Amino acid sequence: MRLRQLVPAWLQHYQRQWLSGDLTAGLIVTVMLIPQSLAYAMLAGLPPEMGLYASILPLFAYALFGTSMSLAVGPVAVASLMTASALTPLAAVGSPEYISLAVLLALLSGLMLFLFGLLRLGFLAYFLSHPVISGFISGSAVLIAIGQLKYILGIKLVSGNLLSTVSGLIHGLAQANPTTSVIGVAALLSLFAARRYLGALLQACGVRATTASLMTRLAPMAVVIIATAIVASLRLDLNAAVAVVGHVPSGLPMPSVPVIEWQMISVLWLPALLISLVGFVESVSVAQSLALKRGQRITPDKELLGIGAANLASALSGGYPVTGGFARSVVNFSAGANTPAAGMVSAVLMAAVIAAFTHWFYYLPHAVLAATIIVAVVALIDIKTLQEAWHYDRADAISLLLTFGGVVLLGVEEGIIIGVALSLAVLVWRSSRPHMAVVGRVPGTEHFRNVDRFQVETQAGVIALRIDESLYFANAHALEEKIENLVDAQPQTRRLILIMSAINQLDTTALGVLTELERTLAERHIALQFAEIKGPVLDRLRHTELGLRMKERIFLSTHQAFISTTA
Amino acid sequence: MRLRQLVPAWLQHYQRQWLSGDLTAGLIVTVMLIPQSLAYAMLAGLPPEMGLYASILPLFAYALFGTSMSLAVGPVAVASLMTASALTPLAAVGSPEYISLAVLLALLSGLMLFLFGLLRLGFLAYFLSHPVISGFISGSAVLIAIGQLKYILGIKLVSGNLLSTVSGLIHGLAQANPTTSVIGVAALLSLFAARRYLGALLQACGVRATTASLMTRLAPMAVVIIATAIVASLRLDLNAAVAVVGHVPSGLPMPSVPVIEWQMISVLWLPALLISLVGFVESVSVAQSLALKRGQRITPDKELLGIGAANLASALSGGYPVTGGFARSVVNFSAGANTPAAGMVSAVLMAAVIAAFTHWFYYLPHAVLAATIIVAVVALIDIKTLQEAWHYDRADAISLLLTFGGVVLLGVEEGIIIGVALSLAVLVWRSSRPHMAVVGRVPGTEHFRNVDRFQVETQAGVIALRIDESLYFANAHALEEKIENLVDAQPQTRRLILIMSAINQLDTTALGVLTELERTLAERHIALQFAEIKGPVLDRLRHTELGLRMKERIFLSTHQAFISTTA
Repeated sequence: MRLRQLVPAWLQHYQRQWLSGDLTAGLIVTVMLIPQSLAYAMLAGLPPEMGLYASILPLFAYALFGTSMSLAVGPVAVASLMTASALTPLAAVGSPEYISLAVLLALLSGLMLFLFGLLRLGFLAYFLSHPVISGFISGSAVLIAIGQLKYILGIKLVSGNLLSTVSGLIHGLAQANPTTSVIGVAALLSLFAARRYLGALLQACGVRATTASLMTRLAPMAVVIIATAIVASLRLDLNAAVAVVGHVPSGLPMPSVPVIEWQMISVLWLPALLISLVGFVESVSVAQSLALKRGQRITPDKELLGIGAANLASALSGGYPVTGGFARSVVNFSAGANTPAAGMVSAVLMAAVIAAFTHWFYYLPHAVLAATIIVAVVALIDIKTLQEAWHYDRADAISLLLTFGGVVLLGVEEGIIIGVALSLAVLVWRSSRPHMAVVGRVPGTEHFRNVDRFQVETQAGVIALRIDESLYFANAHALEEKIENLVDAQPQTRRLILIMSAINQLDTTALGVLTELERTLAERHIALQFAEIKGPVLDRLRHTELGLRMKERIFLSTHQAFISTTA
Repeated sequence: MRLRQLVPAWLQHYQRQWLSGDLTAGLIVTVMLIPQSLAYAMLAGLPPEMGLYASILPLFAYALFGTSMSLAVGPVAVASLMTASALTPLAAVGSPEYISLAVLLALLSGLMLFLFGLLRLGFLAYFLSHPVISGFISGSAVLIAIGQLKYILGIKLVSGNLLSTVSGLIHGLAQANPTTSVIGVAALLSLFAARRYLGALLQACGVRATTASLMTRLAPMAVVIIATAIVASLRLDLNAAVAVVGHVPSGLPMPSVPVIEWQMISVLWLPALLISLVGFVESVSVAQSLALKRGQRITPDKELLGIGAANLASALSGGYPVTGGFARSVVNFSAGANTPAAGMVSAVLMAAVIAAFTHWFYYLPHAVLAATIIVAVVALIDIKTLQEAWHYDRADAISLLLTFGGVVLLGVEEGIIIGVALSLAVLVWRSSRPHMAVVGRVPGTEHFRNVDRFQVETQAGVIALRIDESLYFANAHALEEKIENLVDAQPQTRRLILIMSAINQLDTTALGVLTELERTLAERHIALQFAEIKGPVLDRLRHTELGLRMKERIFLSTHQAFISTTA
């Protein structure tokens, strides 16, 4: 019974007709994944085989714990950039320490995500506003693209911030490797051309739209094969000093528990947390938009377990932080993936690649990998959200721009921290002024409406104030201020009715403010009355100091409070 | 004209009858301020004169820019602890670098607060929930009190975290200075006794309650005078190695611009920000509760300028970060302060002290200063809020405890960061599930009520959903999920009416979710309809993609949507 619970639902009810879709999607995603896994490992400053390691066991782990039927898990651009950014200050890029720190980073990310999943913190998926995510991804894409130019041109350059990279590129132009540059630029142009025109061309030749769109996704593999063949046949690695991938060890790594250095954990926990959260937010948003198209459902709490398990699996098999990628998931979906079995197919194929075919990558030039990265990330730059936000909500647009600027100018970690802070600051700022209206009675009825907009009756000495939002620490003081203004303007006030029909929650701070308010109003001989308190709010209020003091002054309807004579 | 605007309103309309209250309050606060300023400087790891410097110009600066009539600005316990915590890792305690960093910290705090004031970010005062503030203050008080025990006992101990301090105290007990311990413990006991019994005793002798309460506030000064006299007459500093304040340079420091080292700014900006925010939050909450009692008003935007100016003045006169203190402000208020002129009186008296009387402090024992600190901070430990929150709202109580634990176990900066994160996480978590209700028509009316609670009419194929909160990034997805559940349960649905009467705001993320929702519902042949959208929300919605698509499906009332036939 218990064992059966561990088998995911999709596997228990697997239907034979799903198989062909899963096999096709698994195969197509693998063809995308091979160059991407090598390229993103390079972006993370890691040896290429780590990209392959991160593309096998994590896919199985996600298939067992995740809830998305289409999410393609593995190495992705943004998490690779964040890995590089976290580890570069700690160890020499590519050194054994650097590699073991990358594994530790995956382990910490996995543990955190899994723990968050057990604590059911899935709501964290919606911790960031869409404009902030958009600014963060666009900024990361710009950083990544510019960082790859050195490989396109064959310039040796230590990675650093944007400024040093740009100035290094400009000063290094003279030392660019001409052959590498020709290969890199040719790869870039053909990949951009394929992305732009290949689909239309294939459709013009009679290929179906979906098939044509999938085939354009295979262009990177074609470019990789052609470039590798050219470099190998002309031995450009020796004859023209073109940087190539070189020897990639074959065989699967032995599962091993990463070396845990406590001192390093104190440095890595924050980057691990940020990588985890960003990866999780990204995965859920991709998984959710794909699920919606088929009327399926994903569960953020379980996604935490799924992506957490994938990272633990990555760490145990010598990989680095993984998450659900945007482009590969979309391709997986379009290619007909019905279940995570598609991911398992990819994992098996990747295992075959690493078991027997790693020598094929020897002549693969770095410049071509860099070109695939650039083309992939340029597609992530999102101008549309900025335009929409600019017209719809200036504060959101500014959050987007500040996050983008933070990533590009200060760095990827600083950028995401700025983004989180901005999301929350905008939230607090927006809700720091709750909507409130003084109301009066519509003549002849028991209805109460805004005195500024309707012809209503009021009583001398009585103010009825409707609060249109829940009260909590950030906005409770605004109520206090509003009431002081009202009472100052009408010094003859003897009763103040608070209409609490829209209040779903009242936190401890708001309770304190109301308690103090009741006391100061009483000192000024003004009786506070409550009307239309919702059941759950009243239940909690009843046993508080305020609830006891107010006992006789809580009314079911505004009308009852209005006609009451308590004073 | 312009010059006149710079003169604060209270000064322009100063009335002669306010003077006696301001003079009395200024004098009493000075008597409290002398030992406190020396003690808090010691707590911050700074020479005693810096506490005096921080008690002169900042009071003038606040009087010119602030809006509270009662706030007593100057060195305070929590900001002193935070200063020590920020600077200890950077320079040897008390060294010239340490001192210049403290000045720089005041400068940065002042600049930040003043800038925030110009940007009108006064809402930051309500950025932290009351339970989090309470946990933070209580934790700081515990840290401070335990940190002072070494002075009480005359044990030499490098300051460190709680664990190392406690173990240092235990191991150092054998080396305690017996004379110092006697003085320290006697001072502690008499101060606690004065706080507990002196008021009642004086009242029993016929003194009025307010006067008695004020006189207990002068106990620290009495203890300081007696202890100083004993140490001086017996030369206990030489004969029993009792640590004393020693030589305090007299005379005001020359106003000077602190040395600005850019490298240090990159380290100090975060502590400066935290000290600024915590100080600001504390000041506003004290100032506001005092203002309320007299029906006065404070303006958080201007308080930022006031406390910012006070910190700039502190930096320019060789002081360290200042803010509005709780205990002195309450005394200032009770002693009859009518305007910030009371603060100016204190400042003038403090200037006189530093000009002519600093030699009086020579024999003042450290143990007595430590005793005044301990008695002051123990009063800040707040159990009541924990009890109330525990009964009223468990999430708030847990935030309080975690913040307290963070401060005590990890440190004061970590604690406040944890507190901010918790405040906001609880806020996002609470609002991640907006209140929603499926409604139906009350027979024979145009009113709509919750189908679960009222006998109402519904139409086959029509769902009417009332959303009871504003929608934004953290809760918009919950709406999406709710609607998917509803539509899955009623697959014959053809129209979905969203009743938006409670929505005051709709951010870009929520707009995106609604746009996607409209599209996916349309694919399932379900028409989305909006009813009762508020004017401001509709105005912004109109020009968006969603607004244009929905044009014909936006209804003034739920009833109109209900009887419409759009599909």
